[in-house]
Amino acid sequence: MTYCVGLRLGTGLVFMSDTRTNAGVDNISTFRKMFTWVDEDQTFITLMTAGNLATTQAVVSLIDERNKAPTDRSPAILGFHSMFQVARYVGGVLKEVIAQHAEAGERAESYFNATVILGGQVKGSEPRLFLIYPEGNFIEAGDDTPFLQIGEMKYGRPILVRAFDPDMSFEAAVKLLLVSFDSTVKANLSVGLPFDLQTYERDTLRRGLSRRIKADDPYFQAISAGWGNALKGAFDSLPDITL
Amino acid sequence: MTYCVGLRLGTGLVFMSDTRTNAGVDNISTFRKMFTWVDEDQTFITLMTAGNLATTQAVVSLIDERNKAPTDRSPAILGFHSMFQVARYVGGVLKEVIAQHAEAGERAESYFNATVILGGQVKGSEPRLFLIYPEGNFIEAGDDTPFLQIGEMKYGRPILVRAFDPDMSFEAAVKLLLVSFDSTVKANLSVGLPFDLQTYERDTLRRGLSRRIKADDPYFQAISAGWGNALKGAFDSLPDITL
Repeated sequence: MTYCVGLRLGTGLVFMSDTRTNAGVDNISTFRKMFTWVDEDQTFITLMTAGNLATTQAVVSLIDERNKAPTDRSPAILGFHSMFQVARYVGGVLKEVIAQHAEAGERAESYFNATVILGGQVKGSEPRLFLIYPEGNFIEAGDDTPFLQIGEMKYGRPILVRAFDPDMSFEAAVKLLLVSFDSTVKANLSVGLPFDLQTYERDTLRRGLSRRIKADDPYFQAISAGWGNALKGAFDSLPDITL
Repeated sequence: MTYCVGLRLGTGLVFMSDTRTNAGVDNISTFRKMFTWVDEDQTFITLMTAGNLATTQAVVSLIDERNKAPTDRSPAILGFHSMFQVARYVGGVLKEVIAQHAEAGERAESYFNATVILGGQVKGSEPRLFLIYPEGNFIEAGDDTPFLQIGEMKYGRPILVRAFDPDMSFEAAVKLLLVSFDSTVKANLSVGLPFDLQTYERDTLRRGLSRRIKADDPYFQAISAGWGNALKGAFDSLPDITL
């Protein structure tokens, strides 16, 4: 399984993904699920994937390779004039890869399926954040639902629902994501460290902060330990029922 | 869907279940999912159900009716000499009902399936808490895993993992359950109020507190509103990252 979240803030976008993949609990590995393409001053794109690893790796490789002549260092994904066009392109590639793999024989309904969170900005338009389905269609985060999750999303959702605020700072957003990821990791073996973090500040059209957060990261450890105590304090502060 | 939790405390057992059933989001109803049988000074049993409503209602009705002569007010479930025997009996009834319904034609793998949490005490032995599977087999809560959940359990699990303590009071346990249920209700339409609460104090062998907690219950409202603020306070108390 997987856990990825994309946040749409007033000041930009924040992405976090885990890196655990598993084929049964006795076969776990670490793979990057977050990919970024930048054409400075023109386009910034980050993509996160959940689902069948062969599918998601094929999608990312195809995006990287397609239409790229030996002398051309920019893959086609950086050549679009809007994020909507990028989302349609990625959706098309995803649908095509799934159909291709399924041709050879699919054993279960969702065997080769995958889901993608795509966010970024193209010069001259707003930053946008999409969730792309295996069928190639997609939804966009808006003011009512300013964050998107894929994968093992239920454990970490309550804290996002309660504490997310589109006006929060990047620092607070990263803290919130780490709490949401830590809650998930504590309850489900199929999501694991390290986590990948990517921030994008609106209208900069260049890469923000990219960081890999490992299990021994001092800040993550402070959050993980501190959150247990803070939660207990919050819990104790609530009134007791009279039975 | 459904959400039910059974807690095994040092001082006894606490049960909470929601009451929402749904066949699609456009067909929701309220049904009790918690059932208690008491033979004072001899046996106390509470059972909570998740899964196909026709199955769970048939199981409870069969337990209620079976072997009950017109002059005999005690169903067989109160005649066992240990909770292990009760769990075997309930597992047998559950398996039998599913097999019976499936005979007439089952359309999907888990169509008639149901899961049960069973807890209680029989005179002369300890209070025990079980989770019974559709196949009729079961697991028991112990010191390492002192709580059991069925149904839509992921949203409300992180707070249980962090804050549950077998030595907590009944009052604190009810508060914890309400926080866990409130987190679930806030994130998933298939779990809904009112909630049913049952407590059992060890060695009393009589019914503890039975209460139905409705949406307008002042204590629940205080917890629901207070938890949002307490969480925000806890979140703000954590250190910010330096990006």
